Amino acid sequence: MLRQLRPRSSLFKQSPSRLLASYEPSRLYSIKAEAAATTKLPEIDPSALTITKTTTPKELVPQNELVFGRTFTAITDHMLSLEWTAAEGWLPPRITPYQNLSLDPASCVFHYAFTAFEGMKAYKDAKGQVRLFRPTKNMARLNKSVARIALPTFDGAAMIELISKFAALDERFISDQKGYSLYLRPTMIGTQRTLGVGPPGSALFYVIASPVGPYYPTGFKAISLEATDYAVRAWPGGVGDKKLGANYAPCIVPQMEAAKRGFHQNLWLFGEEEYVTEVGTMNLFVAMKNKETGQKELITAPLDGTILEGVTRDSILELARERLVPEGWLISERKYTMGDLDSAAKDGRLMEVFGAGTAAIVAPVRNISWKGKLVDCGLKPGEEAGELTLKLKDWIEARQYGDEEHDWSYVVPK
Amino acid sequence: MLRQLRPRSSLFKQSPSRLLASYEPSRLYSIKAEAAATTKLPEIDPSALTITKTTTPKELVPQNELVFGRTFTAITDHMLSLEWTAAEGWLPPRITPYQNLSLDPASCVFHYAFTAFEGMKAYKDAKGQVRLFRPTKNMARLNKSVARIALPTFDGAAMIELISKFAALDERFISDQKGYSLYLRPTMIGTQRTLGVGPPGSALFYVIASPVGPYYPTGFKAISLEATDYAVRAWPGGVGDKKLGANYAPCIVPQMEAAKRGFHQNLWLFGEEEYVTEVGTMNLFVAMKNKETGQKELITAPLDGTILEGVTRDSILELARERLVPEGWLISERKYTMGDLDSAAKDGRLMEVFGAGTAAIVAPVRNISWKGKLVDCGLKPGEEAGELTLKLKDWIEARQYGDEEHDWSYVVPK
Repeated sequence: MLRQLRPRSSLFKQSPSRLLASYEPSRLYSIKAEAAATTKLPEIDPSALTITKTTTPKELVPQNELVFGRTFTAITDHMLSLEWTAAEGWLPPRITPYQNLSLDPASCVFHYAFTAFEGMKAYKDAKGQVRLFRPTKNMARLNKSVARIALPTFDGAAMIELISKFAALDERFISDQKGYSLYLRPTMIGTQRTLGVGPPGSALFYVIASPVGPYYPTGFKAISLEATDYAVRAWPGGVGDKKLGANYAPCIVPQMEAAKRGFHQNLWLFGEEEYVTEVGTMNLFVAMKNKETGQKELITAPLDGTILEGVTRDSILELARERLVPEGWLISERKYTMGDLDSAAKDGRLMEVFGAGTAAIVAPVRNISWKGKLVDCGLKPGEEAGELTLKLKDWIEARQYGDEEHDWSYVVPK
Repeated sequence: MLRQLRPRSSLFKQSPSRLLASYEPSRLYSIKAEAAATTKLPEIDPSALTITKTTTPKELVPQNELVFGRTFTAITDHMLSLEWTAAEGWLPPRITPYQNLSLDPASCVFHYAFTAFEGMKAYKDAKGQVRLFRPTKNMARLNKSVARIALPTFDGAAMIELISKFAALDERFISDQKGYSLYLRPTMIGTQRTLGVGPPGSALFYVIASPVGPYYPTGFKAISLEATDYAVRAWPGGVGDKKLGANYAPCIVPQMEAAKRGFHQNLWLFGEEEYVTEVGTMNLFVAMKNKETGQKELITAPLDGTILEGVTRDSILELARERLVPEGWLISERKYTMGDLDSAAKDGRLMEVFGAGTAAIVAPVRNISWKGKLVDCGLKPGEEAGELTLKLKDWIEARQYGDEEHDWSYVVPK
């Protein structure tokens, strides 16, 4: 009487069907997944990469139409993908033409949000070389993210090798103009076919890419923020410090609410103290003068489990420690409140406020709506970005585009 | 030079391509989505349902192999699905053979966890009629869930009509034996193709079904819990009260940790006070005697934003208020701590503890590991379920299977 369901068809409809490991779902703990996590299974093997090139290369979107955030629908010709199963480990990597994923409707990503991702960029330098910016940081963070939701960890160096090959293959999509780059989106999803809640017995790691233009094509435009007090993005003991899909969908409505009232982004506060944490999907930095000593201080919230460990955040802190401390600045990872900001603004001590992230690098803030008033963030009338904000952007871009040789920049082998 | 990407292919590879509304992604607020949310777009229209029956019906899994949680890979012949776009509203519903979804790798469900779902069951009564249990509750909750992540809300009554047709079509998968049912999984995912973080301009609502057997095929088996103090499931101002995918993936590792130490599920505590909130993916109920008066009290945590609004939880509360209050019980939705449980256990006042959810209805708890000791939950040696737990299960099942006629049970039209 019993008829087993046919083996799940491969994730890619254009490639031959691959039988994935059968996996016994259980609402309790899966011994199999535990074994997989502790025994030695095949790691990612870049030498096993197969490349199937597209036969219908896309035409490039004209540069002036590559406005960041608006052209994320422009996708390159190919994608990189790797399947993983608890029984077999990492299967051989493949670069194929960009194509749809074919997934069983019972796949756990659709029900339980088994998804983690990264945002990183490839740049083209003056010599025409393709460069990745601090890719080890992204791989380390992704490994932390996937481990937190019981998805498989992986060899970051092997993955960088594969991403490099992918970026090199699609390098014609990368403009060598300053401000242009290729946005890379490494994504890992749980593909286990079960309605039971448990550790995924299979996963898919894929990387897609979209050519992007400058975030501020006509120069900086300072943004206005609305402090959000009715919703909380992250909390101690939660997962707000991981780059999980789970942290993003719940952020949209507060963002829409802020936009409805004319603000560009919402600012996430935490607790009765109203600690300032993050802005929209960026880290936040504040430059102010000390009330007593007048010393200049660059402040960002500490990595206490509620803050995303931004690569741009880290880069700003390193550069600031290297170049601003000798100028007398204090660089602080510490908690600060909306009240602190407000009183600094009142005293004229608030110098600059800016968001920091891979997309914009830095995003200058004009003011913050809080408790029915607008806290002015220190920009002069007509000024769209502060001196420090501009400086930091230049410093980071110099390393991203290889104008300044530095080990943050990883040159993709030809 | 500009070449638009080809229109996204239909979600279903076996059906003709359907051009979805073009939607301009933006990292800021989408005026289009706003318009869609406020203007009148087509609602779900059950009369437009098309049914394509499978030509390869599956053989039924033998009843004795339908162990709950183990046979979630057994799926019925068909699926119900509806597409939605911000420009067109709800497109005509379709019942098709069960099949893979074909989705662009840039679909927002894969990156930002735009997913919400329900768990509900269809039962077969003594007359062979198919019945749904309180389906309006599930639809109301799903509408709250999807609204919280900017997915489209829908007409719950229309959806129940469609789910009924789907359950009726696949009714041969529903055993008329007590304890057996058809687990239904309504799921809504964001299908917007963009890497920008914003409200989805398109979504897919689908319902799949899996025949399930009794949770405790050989009678109740009391479970052991481990109190989790290092991870926090939900937070005031967060989304822990919504049935979002985002709430599930982060729960797996704490569950695996508990299992490693021999416990069946983890128990989520909250705050320094160690308030008891939920167990694994169930609500928790505690029966204890009042320290001063000796009055019996049935307690569950209140819906303060950190607790899932369980349909079984609500059913238990209603039945308890109707049938236990006359016997002198106090029925309480109130906060209580692990310390309260422990002191009741020490005094011999702790009568019963049980989880409550759609899967198990009730799940008796033997003990809870907390601060290095085992808190005994009142079962006698050899006893696997308390008197009240057994009673509640019978009361609820009587209404689920239509043995007791009640408006909680919705008879599916033939």
